[in-house]
Amino acid sequence: MNITANTHANTVAAMSETNRSNILQHLYHHGVSSRAQIAKALELTPAAITKITARLIEAGVIEETGDMEGMKNRRSIGLNLDVHRFHVIGVKFARSLVQIGVFDLAGAPLSLETLPTVHDDTIAETIADIHRRVERLIAADARIVAVGMAVPGPYLRKVGRIAVVSGMQGWRKVNFIEEFQRAFAVPVFIEHDARAGVLAHSLFDPDCPLEDDLAYYLIGEGVGLGVIEHGQLVNGAIGAATEIGHISIDVNGRPCDCGNRGCLERYCSASAIHAMLVEDGEIVRGAAELTHAEACARLFAACDAGDGRAVAMVREIGRYVGYGCVTIFNAYNPKRIIIGDIVAGGGRVLLDEVRRVAAERAIPEIVSSTAISLSGLDADATVAGAAAVAVTQFLERPSLFFDVT
Amino acid sequence: MNITANTHANTVAAMSETNRSNILQHLYHHGVSSRAQIAKALELTPAAITKITARLIEAGVIEETGDMEGMKNRRSIGLNLDVHRFHVIGVKFARSLVQIGVFDLAGAPLSLETLPTVHDDTIAETIADIHRRVERLIAADARIVAVGMAVPGPYLRKVGRIAVVSGMQGWRKVNFIEEFQRAFAVPVFIEHDARAGVLAHSLFDPDCPLEDDLAYYLIGEGVGLGVIEHGQLVNGAIGAATEIGHISIDVNGRPCDCGNRGCLERYCSASAIHAMLVEDGEIVRGAAELTHAEACARLFAACDAGDGRAVAMVREIGRYVGYGCVTIFNAYNPKRIIIGDIVAGGGRVLLDEVRRVAAERAIPEIVSSTAISLSGLDADATVAGAAAVAVTQFLERPSLFFDVT
Repeated sequence: MNITANTHANTVAAMSETNRSNILQHLYHHGVSSRAQIAKALELTPAAITKITARLIEAGVIEETGDMEGMKNRRSIGLNLDVHRFHVIGVKFARSLVQIGVFDLAGAPLSLETLPTVHDDTIAETIADIHRRVERLIAADARIVAVGMAVPGPYLRKVGRIAVVSGMQGWRKVNFIEEFQRAFAVPVFIEHDARAGVLAHSLFDPDCPLEDDLAYYLIGEGVGLGVIEHGQLVNGAIGAATEIGHISIDVNGRPCDCGNRGCLERYCSASAIHAMLVEDGEIVRGAAELTHAEACARLFAACDAGDGRAVAMVREIGRYVGYGCVTIFNAYNPKRIIIGDIVAGGGRVLLDEVRRVAAERAIPEIVSSTAISLSGLDADATVAGAAAVAVTQFLERPSLFFDVT
Repeated sequence: MNITANTHANTVAAMSETNRSNILQHLYHHGVSSRAQIAKALELTPAAITKITARLIEAGVIEETGDMEGMKNRRSIGLNLDVHRFHVIGVKFARSLVQIGVFDLAGAPLSLETLPTVHDDTIAETIADIHRRVERLIAADARIVAVGMAVPGPYLRKVGRIAVVSGMQGWRKVNFIEEFQRAFAVPVFIEHDARAGVLAHSLFDPDCPLEDDLAYYLIGEGVGLGVIEHGQLVNGAIGAATEIGHISIDVNGRPCDCGNRGCLERYCSASAIHAMLVEDGEIVRGAAELTHAEACARLFAACDAGDGRAVAMVREIGRYVGYGCVTIFNAYNPKRIIIGDIVAGGGRVLLDEVRRVAAERAIPEIVSSTAISLSGLDADATVAGAAAVAVTQFLERPSLFFDVT
């Protein structure tokens, strides 16, 4: 009997949270709305809306605004979720690159700091530095309600560990859940980097509002992919799905730390490009002294300046990025692929080559129905994505943040 | 006002159908159950259960059974969905191979017929033959309630057309929706072949009951994949997702009709194997005169008999099938991959090589948490899958089949 009663109570609590969340999401996506508009959109009774919104107002999550134009020209009071009233922190982990940003709920970046370049033997130091910096940010800004973190894949989401980090195995020893889940005064949420990136575009990018089938193709120090399929993130059984960087484009190709051969990220990641530049020695002089990101930035600057060899190398990189797009087409058939992170700096030259390869190698029905573009967010999609992970939780689980029950 | 009223009515109708469907699915998966057990499992009121089950009994969908052991040792009346009381037809389209089977709701094959081998210039004739045969089956068996059809991908599900059929482009001209959707006295449902296959395993295979993350890897005349990710089929925006057969394993490899190079199906499909056997000329003599399926069957028989060259060729095929598994791991990270169709005839020799390649090339966390097996269904998973598509609709949309509203 007790079990049945608890199940019933849990079900009712879950339904209330769903209703609260649906109201917050309606206000987030549609802006100021009257109670009647919300009741109609969500198919809830006016009484239920009145009750739930009263609690949300009392808890300080939403607020009433002045009169607004109502339905049938009656004036009515508007409700508002002020996206500037709450802030979230986003932390991006790459291999050598860690960034921390503060964002409002609409994804506008308010501050961004880049930590000193990480080496395999400074990972512990970097972790301690992140603790200090995030604590400092939270102490300085009472509006901060959550921290989102984005870590490279394959990220074993239940365990809290990254399974492979080519060239920087030290990261595998970090347990992100143990290290950060309860580390701060506000809740912390951890997500795979490219999945965070696709959430950022889904939430913050006016070009793909609430797109049902969207892919974020992260080409940075590693190569990753986040896919929203029919409105849901593709995770896989242990969180190791959508690892485009470790899908082989040549089963007899370059060996990879993951055990596979010919992994895409061995050909077009920033680390692979950096190695190509060091070997070349001419296009970017002294490349060995630079970070991966700096070396790529110099290559792209030379390409933009019209250096023929730089243009040829960016085209070659674009070809490999394009092979990845063809795989994404055949594996997930999204409506849109957004390319982001360091290698998106290749710009128009890169994108033209990616589109050329995709058009040549995919079936016409997919080519004509799939957009490929470069990320146009104000901040890098992964650090904004870490923030998007936090915003998503804020909208979906308000009772974690406020006493609204 | 009208719009609101209609929306409300539609919502109520949808909820009733959902409740009906949940009751049918409960009985289908759990067997004979009392009204009280159903009410508890579905969190519906006893009154609602009584009302809905009365309509289902009246319409002849379910029946009352004698007394059963109830909760708390009270005797109560059981409800039963008799899986033998209704039949469905499954039609499998491959390239040269069309099969039609009659199944009960539990997926037990009652009859199976294979049509004459299809050639590019006999497709129209084959279509007419399918019409005649299905009509005859329906006329002869009043228990048949639906027809499911499974067609090769990339299948453009809204349009009703197959986008590419390597080596047999004539199939591209067939519009399956126009041709079959309203062709028979019972409803017809069309699905991608490998997605039908994964549904068959999810519904009919005792080894993977209601598995949330499951993949069916179809290696027949073409190579396809069906993926259930967190309980949902992965379709993509236009239905062209999970096309493993057209994912490249070598971007400089063999050209494919789809426009890509190095497509997996150019290396391990039954058609590719047949071509290898014809070229070899020794392992299977006179291979050129055989169908793809016959040529493969001879190869596998020679392998089973211990012919060294046949064993070596089956191992080589297994290696390519294994590369595909590694891609499936990295792309979808399912809990289980089931290999089926013609090439699964390679048996133990093939499976051992597939597992060896997967263990060598994937990360240990995935290797240890993912099962790879051969399909063990009584009938080919695609023809059973076509039936599973029909059964799924029967369970999910009872009002399409009966007057239960």
